[in-house]
Amino acid sequence: MELLESRIAEEGRVYPGNVLKVDSFLNHQVDISLMDRMGEEFYQRFKDQGITKIMTIESSGISIACSTARHFGVPVLFAKKSKSLNIGKDVFVSKVTSFTYQKEYEITVSKRYLGPSDKVLLVDDFLAIGHAMKGLIDICKQAEAKIAGIGICIEKGFQQGGEELRKMGYEVMSLAVIESMSEDGTITFR
Amino acid sequence: MELLESRIAEEGRVYPGNVLKVDSFLNHQVDISLMDRMGEEFYQRFKDQGITKIMTIESSGISIACSTARHFGVPVLFAKKSKSLNIGKDVFVSKVTSFTYQKEYEITVSKRYLGPSDKVLLVDDFLAIGHAMKGLIDICKQAEAKIAGIGICIEKGFQQGGEELRKMGYEVMSLAVIESMSEDGTITFR
Repeated sequence: MELLESRIAEEGRVYPGNVLKVDSFLNHQVDISLMDRMGEEFYQRFKDQGITKIMTIESSGISIACSTARHFGVPVLFAKKSKSLNIGKDVFVSKVTSFTYQKEYEITVSKRYLGPSDKVLLVDDFLAIGHAMKGLIDICKQAEAKIAGIGICIEKGFQQGGEELRKMGYEVMSLAVIESMSEDGTITFR
Repeated sequence: MELLESRIAEEGRVYPGNVLKVDSFLNHQVDISLMDRMGEEFYQRFKDQGITKIMTIESSGISIACSTARHFGVPVLFAKKSKSLNIGKDVFVSKVTSFTYQKEYEITVSKRYLGPSDKVLLVDDFLAIGHAMKGLIDICKQAEAKIAGIGICIEKGFQQGGEELRKMGYEVMSLAVIESMSEDGTITFR
């Protein structure tokens, strides 16, 4: 998606450890009109698949999930990372290792809101190693919900998550795939 | 807002410790069309105030912030709760005590995205004791950003946050104010 790639090229900053900061428009400050355009791209690809829910993980997936869900006219369902007093006990749980935060955590989804009659589109802002996405897939399997596909804003193509998910048979639509990046600021797209 | 009140009355569940669960439409599963209508309410009230940013705290404020920002045509800026490797050092920080999660945490906002030329609308899904909102206010003060007002989906009117913020001089617009609620499921609106 050219619009997204040009924003990454203009505003993205590369830091040691394969960190790409795009917090001016994607996951701290959020450009809603760009989100809306990205949500529309996912809609055009998956609109004929009978999607019932857009799923993501808090927090930075919520914006793109909301923008995508508007186009589909279906609810968002976001997995929770923290154990709130309020989530209750009747939940699907999966373990995820975070690269960004360097720790393992559990994600939970209430059994009330996901089941065998659901067909979901999984979305997230980033795909790198793919741990978070595999946690969502695990939860969908527990719920016996069907997965129509995976929509990603920025895939780090030099890490294994995207390849692994495609080998598992999932249709992964990444709006920008980064082939390589270096700390001098050079970002090459696939 | 009648639409919101009727959803709370129909789907809200009351649990011990003043917990109101509305996770079927507000903060786990998210009804985007309702979010859109709520965002429009905030827009109608604050549209003439020169708002430059819609601010909230991750995670459950992000949905309403995005829906509101669409109407205003301005970016969202959400304060981060966790210390990510990616946030960097040049940040405003404030301490917040969470009632829901029973712990103290820091919220951070990058200095790149908030400053004296900003006029912000602060939004959140819930207002109860008001700690999170006071953290956002503190950060706006550090940044010398102006606060146009505060938009809340559900205010727990029997807790002190709303009253305190109004006494501090802020215009607080709550779309539903709960006067009282009891564990038999009775919810009374102000």
